[in-house]
Amino acid sequence: MRGAVIHAPGDIRLETLDDPKILHPTDAIIRTAVTCVCGSDLWPYRGAEPTGAAHPMGHEYVGFVEEVGSEVTSVKPGQFVVGSFATSDNTCANCRNGFPSSCLNREFMSTCQADYVRIPNAQGTLVATGDIPDRRLWPGLLAVSDVMGTGWWAADAAEVEPGSTVVVVGDGAVGLCAVIAAKEMGAQQIIAMSRHEPRQRLARRFGATDIVTERGEEGVSRIKELTGGIGADSVLECVGTPEATRQALHSARPGGNVGFVGVPHDVTVDGQELFFSHVGLRGGPAPVRRYLPDLIDRVLTGAIDPGEVFDLTLPLDQVAEGYRAMDERRAIKALLQP
Amino acid sequence: MRGAVIHAPGDIRLETLDDPKILHPTDAIIRTAVTCVCGSDLWPYRGAEPTGAAHPMGHEYVGFVEEVGSEVTSVKPGQFVVGSFATSDNTCANCRNGFPSSCLNREFMSTCQADYVRIPNAQGTLVATGDIPDRRLWPGLLAVSDVMGTGWWAADAAEVEPGSTVVVVGDGAVGLCAVIAAKEMGAQQIIAMSRHEPRQRLARRFGATDIVTERGEEGVSRIKELTGGIGADSVLECVGTPEATRQALHSARPGGNVGFVGVPHDVTVDGQELFFSHVGLRGGPAPVRRYLPDLIDRVLTGAIDPGEVFDLTLPLDQVAEGYRAMDERRAIKALLQP
Repeated sequence: MRGAVIHAPGDIRLETLDDPKILHPTDAIIRTAVTCVCGSDLWPYRGAEPTGAAHPMGHEYVGFVEEVGSEVTSVKPGQFVVGSFATSDNTCANCRNGFPSSCLNREFMSTCQADYVRIPNAQGTLVATGDIPDRRLWPGLLAVSDVMGTGWWAADAAEVEPGSTVVVVGDGAVGLCAVIAAKEMGAQQIIAMSRHEPRQRLARRFGATDIVTERGEEGVSRIKELTGGIGADSVLECVGTPEATRQALHSARPGGNVGFVGVPHDVTVDGQELFFSHVGLRGGPAPVRRYLPDLIDRVLTGAIDPGEVFDLTLPLDQVAEGYRAMDERRAIKALLQP
Repeated sequence: MRGAVIHAPGDIRLETLDDPKILHPTDAIIRTAVTCVCGSDLWPYRGAEPTGAAHPMGHEYVGFVEEVGSEVTSVKPGQFVVGSFATSDNTCANCRNGFPSSCLNREFMSTCQADYVRIPNAQGTLVATGDIPDRRLWPGLLAVSDVMGTGWWAADAAEVEPGSTVVVVGDGAVGLCAVIAAKEMGAQQIIAMSRHEPRQRLARRFGATDIVTERGEEGVSRIKELTGGIGADSVLECVGTPEATRQALHSARPGGNVGFVGVPHDVTVDGQELFFSHVGLRGGPAPVRRYLPDLIDRVLTGAIDPGEVFDLTLPLDQVAEGYRAMDERRAIKALLQP
């Protein structure tokens, strides 16, 4: 089969790899329907994280079950399935507590930009749709497996509720999906921080009521002006840099919440500043599996269409162009078709 | 009148000071019934915080209203009142959001180890009891004005609920009150981290089900053993040092919560570590005013007796001995009688 491999920063190649095999009775093999490039794939691509030895890439997938291990009874060959970038057994204490992305048997997916993928913990990880969904819904379901699930988590972690005032920091695919989530949860004001006109347009279409283009303390002042002088109830941090984190923490009102879902890079939080801000802080890898049944349903019924974040569609053999386009901000998110 | 003044680390003196006067129409003057020394008073006393020029001390008080400003209608002379260490107008946006200790007109109390005290924002700050409470209830009501309110906030911020597993880091008065709070909120397991036998006994009496004497990573391992291997639902950090904060963060389960109520000193939190821990973090000055009606009621009906944290009672003129006894850990908390 074909699969993307990173050799060094900036060097992604589609190569012929061995077909994946069932290694454990809890595995399944799926044939990829569509996959994509994630903003977090850009960290190693840009050399901001060490790439190490050449290795496959990709952690987002929807597809058709090809084969299941002997202990997998919840899905069967031929079914269309959605999973999470973090696999989970759905039975351990952390799964039962609602945090499948901290499953005691968790394995992070890392080989999904390929024709076939082995899914560990398949029983707990995969959710089958009733019928084979229409092709035009595949991008939305793919988004659910990562960016939409992560945007939902940002809003959940920041305790968005009906009537909330919300700020979204970051206009990447996760940030845009966070706007969808805030809207679905009933926020009355959704302020998207974005300087990119096409992303601003998409944010507005997803439900943003205001756009703030300023950054840093100027951006924070603008947020305060828009939120009665005190800051927002909920701030959804979807970047992971020190600047974005600072902006998020300063944009929340006393007693408000920051949900942070961009993997933090070189971020530290000052204890005394957090203390006197009265802001609650919660983040981590999104517990996507917990949200899957609900989010799949919202996509299938047309309530949400997070597939719109894919503004570039390429055949899998142009995966390198997908990375380039996202790196150069020519694309928000690149869909890959095997 | 007499009032305690700090001149330098270790140097507390009871001096003759001017009687406080109404400065604003929103002020009240109270005659102190009882006051006390707080663990946080020890930061400057020990030189861990600069003391600056000589200044009065004390932020905990219950007393009798002597006089009210022209805009104060909610309390009247002769009434017995309880307030918070942070004054609040109880009408601003932050107060309405439940965070009176971030009131836009907040003033921190700082002159309460004295015969008389001026209370700013008296209308929003003071809560009068129905009748003059029995003297034996004064210590409990005094505790409510700070340490019990703060312990309650620790449990609230850490989202303790019926059936929760709870760890309390810190066996000072706030930590011990946090045990009371966790018990009242229905926690099924309350693990107090303490090495001091008299404090362990009090923690048990307040509802602790387990005592852990180990510290650092050894303490964390012990917590994990007691909580099914994953950590506690809620951890109440009642110290404020880097060690205590680290211990608290490592003792919470994925998806659990840390409420941190000890003013952080030299504490920083690593963003990536917090991210992958999935632990929620919230702290700050306790919104005591929000809890006052409920906590006063619990003390008056005998449901709780946080006054037990006072294991040393002194006349006000021995205030210096109160500081010394707490500094040397001969006393948990010193009550001062004018």
